[in-house]
Amino acid sequence: MPDLSHFDPVDLPHASRLVNHGPTVLVTSAHGGRANVMAAAWSMPVEFTPPRIAVVIDKRTWTRELVLASGAFGLCVPGAALVDLTHAVGSCSGRAVDKIARHGIATRPGPVLGVPVIEAGCAAWLECRLIREPHTEDAYDTCFGEVVAAAADRRIFAGGHWTFRDDNAALQTIHHLGGGHFVRAGGTLRAAPL
Amino acid sequence: MPDLSHFDPVDLPHASRLVNHGPTVLVTSAHGGRANVMAAAWSMPVEFTPPRIAVVIDKRTWTRELVLASGAFGLCVPGAALVDLTHAVGSCSGRAVDKIARHGIATRPGPVLGVPVIEAGCAAWLECRLIREPHTEDAYDTCFGEVVAAAADRRIFAGGHWTFRDDNAALQTIHHLGGGHFVRAGGTLRAAPL
Repeated sequence: MPDLSHFDPVDLPHASRLVNHGPTVLVTSAHGGRANVMAAAWSMPVEFTPPRIAVVIDKRTWTRELVLASGAFGLCVPGAALVDLTHAVGSCSGRAVDKIARHGIATRPGPVLGVPVIEAGCAAWLECRLIREPHTEDAYDTCFGEVVAAAADRRIFAGGHWTFRDDNAALQTIHHLGGGHFVRAGGTLRAAPL
Repeated sequence: MPDLSHFDPVDLPHASRLVNHGPTVLVTSAHGGRANVMAAAWSMPVEFTPPRIAVVIDKRTWTRELVLASGAFGLCVPGAALVDLTHAVGSCSGRAVDKIARHGIATRPGPVLGVPVIEAGCAAWLECRLIREPHTEDAYDTCFGEVVAAAADRRIFAGGHWTFRDDNAALQTIHHLGGGHFVRAGGTLRAAPL
């Protein structure tokens, strides 16, 4: 079978750009032969070098359990074509149902930690090693991670830059307003040169 | 002079929705008779109730100094019309220049803490009390805050919901890709009912 992936590795110094603009992400995790995916609107970079991010993962979720057990997680950036899937996996728990199987989500192991990452329909992914911060995890459900590998679909992110065009609308990032309503990033604006 | 503000208070349980979709924000601060504003692409809610947020404020910035001294900060959500201003105030330090005066930015004191907040050209603001977390501030430049008051321009956020329409494009939120390139939120998508 031919390799249909449009993904290329992203240099780690550029990894923060994949989530710099606040997209809703899919958090992937696996431990002990089971894997899970949840949606998260609350994530952000916190450092360029080394690339580090923060993501809010509620302590009641199964993802939190898998992330703590494995010390790793993926952040996958869904394109607009995955809006229904994103909402669906954000609305039920993987304890009760195998969301990856139910939704027929294809995953591949990340190159460094083996965290499952999603490419089909996604614009990018980041493979992250959990940085244990028990107080912050407990008080704010905020988990910190160091990005150890990243990749993006070259049709929308290449050479360290996003390009939002009419012909890649299905890959454009989505941003959750709440209650299943999303906005799509688009309409690039260029600030005046300083 | 008539009150030209289009801002209405936002109920605190809805405050997280103002930044749920990852807009770039303007961080405002004041102490000892001086005030400052900087741009921040890295912020996120961390809790609905009480409404709490996290924002990355580099330890070398003057904003960080003012926030620590006053125990408070504002997050103002610029609309698309403020893209040049957002980039400009994100590209120089308030130590060297009074950015509020230079750019003729009108501020008003927030109702609870008196933090300067910006309404003209902004879609919303949140007035926040710093929650001291010295380790996280030091290790990740990540500052936590509790939202104590919030308001939004009723032409784009009302009744707890955003509405992005052709006639409010100037107020639509902006999301920084890096290097002065932004995308505008728009093109609302509704996920399929579950």
